[in-house]
This record gives sequence, structure tokens and C-alpha cells, in this order.
Amino acid sequence: MSSPKRHSAQTYIDGILAQDRVLLSQAITVVESTLASDEALAQEILEQVLPHTGKAIRVGITGVPGVGKSTFIEALGTYLTDTLGHHLAVLAIDPSSQRSRGSILGDKTRMEQLGMNPRAYIRPSPAGKSLGGVARRTREAMLLCEAAGFEVLFIETVGVGQSETMVHGMVDFFLLLLLAGAGDELQGIKKGIMEMADLLAINKADGKNLAAARLAQLEYQNALHLFPPAASGWWPQVLTCSALEQSGIAELWEQVRAYEAHTQANGYWQQRRQAQNLDWMYRSISHKLESDFYDHPQVQTLLKALSKEVSEGLRSPSHAANELLQIYRRYTKI
Amino acid sequence: MSSPKRHSAQTYIDGILAQDRVLLSQAITVVESTLASDEALAQEILEQVLPHTGKAIRVGITGVPGVGKSTFIEALGTYLTDTLGHHLAVLAIDPSSQRSRGSILGDKTRMEQLGMNPRAYIRPSPAGKSLGGVARRTREAMLLCEAAGFEVLFIETVGVGQSETMVHGMVDFFLLLLLAGAGDELQGIKKGIMEMADLLAINKADGKNLAAARLAQLEYQNALHLFPPAASGWWPQVLTCSALEQSGIAELWEQVRAYEAHTQANGYWQQRRQAQNLDWMYRSISHKLESDFYDHPQVQTLLKALSKEVSEGLRSPSHAANELLQIYRRYTKI
Repeated sequence: MSSPKRHSAQTYIDGILAQDRVLLSQAITVVESTLASDEALAQEILEQVLPHTGKAIRVGITGVPGVGKSTFIEALGTYLTDTLGHHLAVLAIDPSSQRSRGSILGDKTRMEQLGMNPRAYIRPSPAGKSLGGVARRTREAMLLCEAAGFEVLFIETVGVGQSETMVHGMVDFFLLLLLAGAGDELQGIKKGIMEMADLLAINKADGKNLAAARLAQLEYQNALHLFPPAASGWWPQVLTCSALEQSGIAELWEQVRAYEAHTQANGYWQQRRQAQNLDWMYRSISHKLESDFYDHPQVQTLLKALSKEVSEGLRSPSHAANELLQIYRRYTKI
Repeated sequence: MSSPKRHSAQTYIDGILAQDRVLLSQAITVVESTLASDEALAQEILEQVLPHTGKAIRVGITGVPGVGKSTFIEALGTYLTDTLGHHLAVLAIDPSSQRSRGSILGDKTRMEQLGMNPRAYIRPSPAGKSLGGVARRTREAMLLCEAAGFEVLFIETVGVGQSETMVHGMVDFFLLLLLAGAGDELQGIKKGIMEMADLLAINKADGKNLAAARLAQLEYQNALHLFPPAASGWWPQVLTCSALEQSGIAELWEQVRAYEAHTQANGYWQQRRQAQNLDWMYRSISHKLESDFYDHPQVQTLLKALSKEVSEGLRSPSHAANELLQIYRRYTKI
């Protein structure tokens, strides 16, 4: 297969800094590419735009399917762009997108209004072999969007898998959308996600749901008091909102800005950004060390046999690990 | 330094299976050893006793300092050994033990009664460079204790660090000890620990604390209803107990046994043990791949320079990761 046609790094860099949407989209495609021929180009673009990144507020948004995430993002996004005049980029991490072919943002009927908004930019989730790879590329797409002048970034994810921890590791603020309904709404939410949230919002707080939403708000607020305090010194609030009626949207965004002010004042904002940068370096290293190891044909063959013995308790995990590492070292001459 | 004097593997194996405490302790020392000369011996002991492991119930116990963990373990341990006739081994993971020199179990004044109980065996935490290493050795010490006929194992940990996730990954049941007092007791507990617990116990529910403990019980029970259900299909209860007055101890142990019955019936118990075995193999592999990488002198030198640039946002995390991996490959010829 021949390599796809590409511009020079400088063309992408200039285009991004000039806020050219077409070149931004093409540059994100380069960064998301798994082609070896794109790797050096992607690195060069990233290094060059790096000084122009970091100025946006990065917001992670999660919630199970059915919580009304896209309608919510459309409502909040329209408020941010039309009322406040911000430029907003929406990215998505969807580990299931390989199976369902773009279940998050690929669906053309979703976010129609925001999709036509000149101040908004929507980018679907890249496909990828591993969640770590998808997350890395989303993070780098985020940096390109920042360099292109977007002041607000949304990273959308479905609250049912492992992607939330990844998203939590790349954003400043993590928002969990919930529905009222006596705990049932959490059936799909993964454990630990509630404790990562900087804000809980009970969506669809309108019409007949309003009373139930207010009750849920009270219950969650009580429950959060039992949680350990966050390192940010921030106590997450529980709000109600209705994307349908556009209510509670401005109040919700005030919480995001209050968090920003609070953590910038106590230094947590900067600390966390620095720690996230380092963390991504360490994650990239681990990811590459492990993929080299597990992609090795001799390792794969032996792993298959040993996994069965280990899982059944016939061989100790550390003994099996040693054997696999010995094989790997022999063939790679470490 | 000359190698310490060791018996043959067979001597340790026979000793462990004959429930000889002295040889068990010496074998644990071999397993915990970081000496290269002990590695093959440790592996052989482990492989040989492996068929005799897995029959105990493994209970993780955590809670912040001040919650009364050692008094609680003494009370529950005495109940298990004296009233129920079980044989109990207590191990500890304490990531801070290097600094505080045995802050968990080294303290001679702690667990005095249980320490003299012929049915109980108490083993302090091994020191170690990395938490992963300490946890691996604790897990292997646990297997030796099982082979030596202990039916109940406690793995004690302080609920303030990262060790809980490690402990959670090696036990069947995870118990979180709490104190009453309007949320303040969680100041030291790490986020996410509450959601790992199979049982919450409000300790020191005696005298003037009794009313507050009952209130806390109610609050936590309500809060837990808002949590997503566990994969085990088990709903964690909140109990009160008093190690001082020996109250609530039998009821608490009934919960552990009820969990055992519930998860053995639905298959989760076996599934989880198998998954834990595999997980420990994968962890061992990751740990070794990473320690080889980070111990490399050229990597260490470059890492120091790059970390600063990455943390300050002057270089992209993935670019730095690639540079480090290139240096590593060049010197190790992968």
C-alpha cells in the first residue's frame, strides 16, 4: 500500500496556527494515523505546536448511554459558543467504536445544531487496536485543537469501560451525567467513576422528572459528603439540568469556572497539568514496552500455554512471568 | 557479601507441609529475599507447594491509622482461633515501612494476645524498593501460609496509599474499617477504596460513640445504594463493631462467610481467583519490563533531562517516550 498524500509539517503547523479547519482536520488524521510513514511527521507537528497549547480548559464528560450526553453537549456547547462567544472543540473516546462503527459521534443525526455552528468543531473518535493507543491519539488531537485557538475542549466518553480513567488523566475537570431513578441509572456506570467526578449533573430534570431529579440531587449530595476529599481541595456539587429546556446549563458552567479559579489559586491546576504530562510519558513507555513484548511471536505461543496453567493454579504467576521474559530476552538479546 | 545459609528446597517444602512454623518463616524469608542467589530456590519452593494452596479464605483489611486496626484484628483473630478453632495467618503490606521501620506489625506492643496464640501466625511486612515488589512477595508468602494449613488469611494494609489496589487484587474479600464522625474519618482514606469494599465496619461502636456509630452506619448504607453494583452480585453491608467490647465480631464474620457462599454459588469466587492469577502474571511481566528499562543507566540520565521538559510542557510526552525507547533499544540491541 502506498503512503497517503501528505503536506509538509510546516504547512500543517501554519494551517493550525491560522485556525484553518481543513488543515487542522488533516493534521489530526496524521496524528491519529498508525502508518509508520506518518510517525515522524506527527512528532514534528506536535513539537512545533506545543508552545501554543495548554491555554484551553479541558473538560471530560461521561455518562451511560441513555443519559442524554449528546443533547446535553449540544445545549452546553450552544451556550458556550453563542452566548459566551467561546470556540469549542468536541473530541470523543469510544472503545466500542470498532464494533459499532462510530457509535459516539459518527451518527449523523447527533449534535446537528452544534455541527453547523461556526464556533464549534466536532471530531469523532479514532479507531484503534488498544484503548491506550486511542487515548494517546485523542490527547494529541486535543493539543492540536488548542493550538488552533479553541478555548474550551470537551472529551466525551461512555461511562462503562476503562476509558474514563484515561480521559480523567487528560482533562482539568471531569463531569458525570446521571439520571434520576433510585440508583438504577448507575447499573451501567463503572465503579470508581463517581469518585473521579468534579461535578455530578442530574440530566433530564424537566416535566414529570423534576421532583425525582431534585430528590436524586439531595441523595447524591449526601453521599458525596461521605467521600474522601479530593487532592484539589474541591468539593464536587450535584446540580440538576435539562438539556431540553436549557435549564441549569449556565449554573453548571459556573461550577467549571469556579473550579478553575479555585485550583489556579491553590496551585493544583498547574501541578495537575505537569503531573498529567509526566504521566503520559510514563504511560507511553509502558504501552510500548508491553506491546513489543506481547507482539513477539515466541512470547505469544508460550503465553497461550502458560496462561491456562496459571489461571488454573497449576503454575505460579511469577514463575510463568520469568519463563516468558527469558524467552523474550533470548530472542531479542537483551 | 556471601549468601546466607539455606536449606534445600525439599527441606522447606516438607517443613511447610508438616506445618513447621520455623521452616515456614525461613521459607517466607527466602521468597521475600531480593538476593539473586535465592531466586531459583524461591521458585522451586513455590512451584512445589502450589498444589497445596488456594484452600484458605483470603481477607484484606484496611483503614486509616487510628481506626483501631490492630485491636480489631486481635479481636476478630481471637474469635476465629479460640471460638471457631481456625488457624489464622496475618500478613501486612506497608509501603511506609521503610521509613517508619515496621510501623504496621513491627511494633511489639501490638497484637500481643494474638501473637502468643498457638493457632495464629503473624508476619510483618517485608521491606522493598517498590510497592509492586512488596506486594508480589506478600502474595507469595500468602501461598506458603496456605500450604502450611492456615484456613484464614488476613492481609492488612493502611488505607492511605496505593497498596489497597494491590491487596484487593490478591484477596477474596475486602473489609474497610471506618470510624463514626461526620466524614472526618475519611480524611486519610484514598479515593476509590470505599468502592472496593465488600463490607464496611464502623469500629469503636461502644460507650459514648455508639449513637454516632449507628448514625454513620445508616449514612453509609444509604450512600452505598447509590453505588453501582459489584461484578460479584454482592451488596456490601455496613456493620458496627467494637473490638474493645468484642461486639459485632461474630456478625461481621458471618458476612464474610455469606459472601463466600454467595460467590461460590454464582461462580464469581472461582472466576475471580483465576483472573487474579492471570493478573499477577501480567503484573509481574510489566514490573520486570519496566524495572529493566528504568534501571538502565543511559535511560536514567536521559529521563532526568526529559522529565523536566515534559512536565513543563516544552516537549510532548510521546516524543520523549520515543527518545527514551530509542536509547534503550540501541544499548540493549532489541
